[in-house]
Amino acid sequence: MNMQEMDKQQLQQLKGELEQAYAAFKARGLKLNMSRGKPSAEQLDLSAALLQPLSDFKDADGVDVRNYGGLTGIPEARRLFGELMDMPAEQVIIGGTASLNLMYDTIARAFLHGVLPGKTPWGKLDKVKFLCPAPGYDRHFAICESFGIEMLPIAMTAEGPDMDAVEKLAASDSAIKGMWCVPMYSNPDGITYSEAVVKRIAALKPAADDFRIMWDNAYGVHHLDANDRDHLANIYTACAAAGNEDMVYMYASTSKITFAGGGISAMAASPANIAYTVKQLGVQTISYDKVNQLRHCRFLPDKAAVDKHMARHAAVLKPRFDIVLQALAQQIAPLRIGEWHQPKGGYFVSYYALPGTARRIVELCKQGGVELTGAGAAYPYKNDPDDSNIRIAPSYPSVDELKQAMELFCIACKLAAAEKLLG
Amino acid sequence: MNMQEMDKQQLQQLKGELEQAYAAFKARGLKLNMSRGKPSAEQLDLSAALLQPLSDFKDADGVDVRNYGGLTGIPEARRLFGELMDMPAEQVIIGGTASLNLMYDTIARAFLHGVLPGKTPWGKLDKVKFLCPAPGYDRHFAICESFGIEMLPIAMTAEGPDMDAVEKLAASDSAIKGMWCVPMYSNPDGITYSEAVVKRIAALKPAADDFRIMWDNAYGVHHLDANDRDHLANIYTACAAAGNEDMVYMYASTSKITFAGGGISAMAASPANIAYTVKQLGVQTISYDKVNQLRHCRFLPDKAAVDKHMARHAAVLKPRFDIVLQALAQQIAPLRIGEWHQPKGGYFVSYYALPGTARRIVELCKQGGVELTGAGAAYPYKNDPDDSNIRIAPSYPSVDELKQAMELFCIACKLAAAEKLLG
Repeated sequence: MNMQEMDKQQLQQLKGELEQAYAAFKARGLKLNMSRGKPSAEQLDLSAALLQPLSDFKDADGVDVRNYGGLTGIPEARRLFGELMDMPAEQVIIGGTASLNLMYDTIARAFLHGVLPGKTPWGKLDKVKFLCPAPGYDRHFAICESFGIEMLPIAMTAEGPDMDAVEKLAASDSAIKGMWCVPMYSNPDGITYSEAVVKRIAALKPAADDFRIMWDNAYGVHHLDANDRDHLANIYTACAAAGNEDMVYMYASTSKITFAGGGISAMAASPANIAYTVKQLGVQTISYDKVNQLRHCRFLPDKAAVDKHMARHAAVLKPRFDIVLQALAQQIAPLRIGEWHQPKGGYFVSYYALPGTARRIVELCKQGGVELTGAGAAYPYKNDPDDSNIRIAPSYPSVDELKQAMELFCIACKLAAAEKLLG
Repeated sequence: MNMQEMDKQQLQQLKGELEQAYAAFKARGLKLNMSRGKPSAEQLDLSAALLQPLSDFKDADGVDVRNYGGLTGIPEARRLFGELMDMPAEQVIIGGTASLNLMYDTIARAFLHGVLPGKTPWGKLDKVKFLCPAPGYDRHFAICESFGIEMLPIAMTAEGPDMDAVEKLAASDSAIKGMWCVPMYSNPDGITYSEAVVKRIAALKPAADDFRIMWDNAYGVHHLDANDRDHLANIYTACAAAGNEDMVYMYASTSKITFAGGGISAMAASPANIAYTVKQLGVQTISYDKVNQLRHCRFLPDKAAVDKHMARHAAVLKPRFDIVLQALAQQIAPLRIGEWHQPKGGYFVSYYALPGTARRIVELCKQGGVELTGAGAAYPYKNDPDDSNIRIAPSYPSVDELKQAMELFCIACKLAAAEKLLG
């Protein structure tokens, strides 16, 4: 029964029942942290081979990975990520555990030295702005905040960012220097940018000649079902076709393929971008961990091996996503107090509560024993103008814990809605 | 016989003999790269245990190292480096493979955000200068060059940098923001700063209130003989005693303890410096490789284990240093055409040729089949005003190769000296 059509008496009765249900749940004393998209132990166990002995230590070029050298990564790791990112191996740099670190460093280099030789360092400018499709990844926004980059939120559609707004803004203001994108199974909405959107991004005519797309393809192989998956167009090829070859930096990692706390990451871009990055990287460091790169390549030698491995992750993840979606379909849908996407991959279900209730729902869940990502966290400056979006991260809890957490979540959504509708 | 006292005829005869010897050596077709301080395969094999299976994956706090979290490093790694650096574990941050990366990032943070809250970002200043004890580590100087930091060379004495010059300069110019130090078995001289020098550094009264000592203790446990070793005073304790607690950042790594291409690194500093660094690091990355940190701590749980392990390195390294020093003592000393230190640890023998001959010697060695570090590389802007210093790196070649290389080196030194003296 649609809550929005209930009269005051019905709402009050429902609210009373919900308060009882909430109190009863609280009494169970559950303690669960669902605030981040962390893989479960069951998923980490899938990469146990990485903990096994490494019997030799020569890379594909015969170089001893234990020693100095190899700034850009061992050849087989560059090839592997080249295959995963659909890029030539020589345009790939392998990094450490976190692709976020590669992104941060890219922005830091732009501020310190400019994006290419001869370009003004962004640190010399009065104002730098970024387009931020929202909701988006909170850590991207944290990077912007730390550099004092003004964030301009861009609405998300079912096909990706609102490109009318993106095109208009990028063309109108040379202080707008870039745009964050999680183009596949986006964090948190689980939306994959359509081919049309990718092409429009690639064909942008920004006012700034040092405008950069930060293409964080964190979930490029993270399908929940390989037979019913999204497909993402190659942004680099599209950029090159549009004469914008240098406009995009691409990132990926094995954080949610192997070990979140001990994986490897990669960056890919145009030859000019890579050459300039490597030049500065050679001042910043000696090499990333080549032993771990070799471990990874022995375990997952090519994309076929990765795909096979990701099917095992999907077998762990899909039942958890199903629990979330089923609970929402059964408990929330009939009441018309929330909306959500049906992601085919990634790590999140993005829930849109009745406007003005997201903070209250997160608070109710917290008091009930389940910590969710903070309401508004997926928006620039943590500011969700509708106080509506909540990111649900189903991966870490056990199936039983998740069922309980969703029970609480649905009670909280209904209770907050009843409170709101009663004014 | 002292070459400097030879008459023209004697020199010409000697030169002729040396040219023959040089030609004969060249004909052997040796090909050897001694340009960097790389560990040998024999040394890398000492850490084979790191390639063995890791049977469990919980850190000292019971946290799964395979997953997200642990920005500052696992507890046992912080304790280990705390012990090695003589610092409280909570003032230690564990990094990735290269401590150089931690140093670069420290400087980058100073340029972008200032060294502490409220301090002016160095990037906003017209001029930033650093004191650079020279000869020193070329990669430190490369960082300065990349940030446009003006380098002021400071002469090295047998006890460390010329402190009269350091004190005077630091006090006189607020654009001088820091100083590089490799305080133990310095690169390349192998000099350990005396306690008096450490105390004078700690007690500096710089004109800049955001002056920072970059204390790169790369060779803190790298003795050639544990029974005849140098000792280094604790700079942090000395700084704190002098009221300069925030003035120093300390760095170390396992690059030359375990794997140069797959080790772990650390940074230590005052609570205020660490807190500010961690705050920014939390924006830059998620965590460094905790799996590798655990591997390292299982292999080398404490300083006693590290010391035992370093004795095995010494057993490999000392014979090589002996070959270099013996060759110099036998071939060069009687001729009075060069000087050098007798390091008790570290990775280099620093040779001072007859002024004006270093470039020629390096060129002769290269043509003869042995690539040395470029002449002048150990000076800011690669500018050795005397064209005298050459860094000899004995670690990587085999004993037999090293003997041959030193044979060539001594011929080259003599030939270049003869050429020079003949004017």
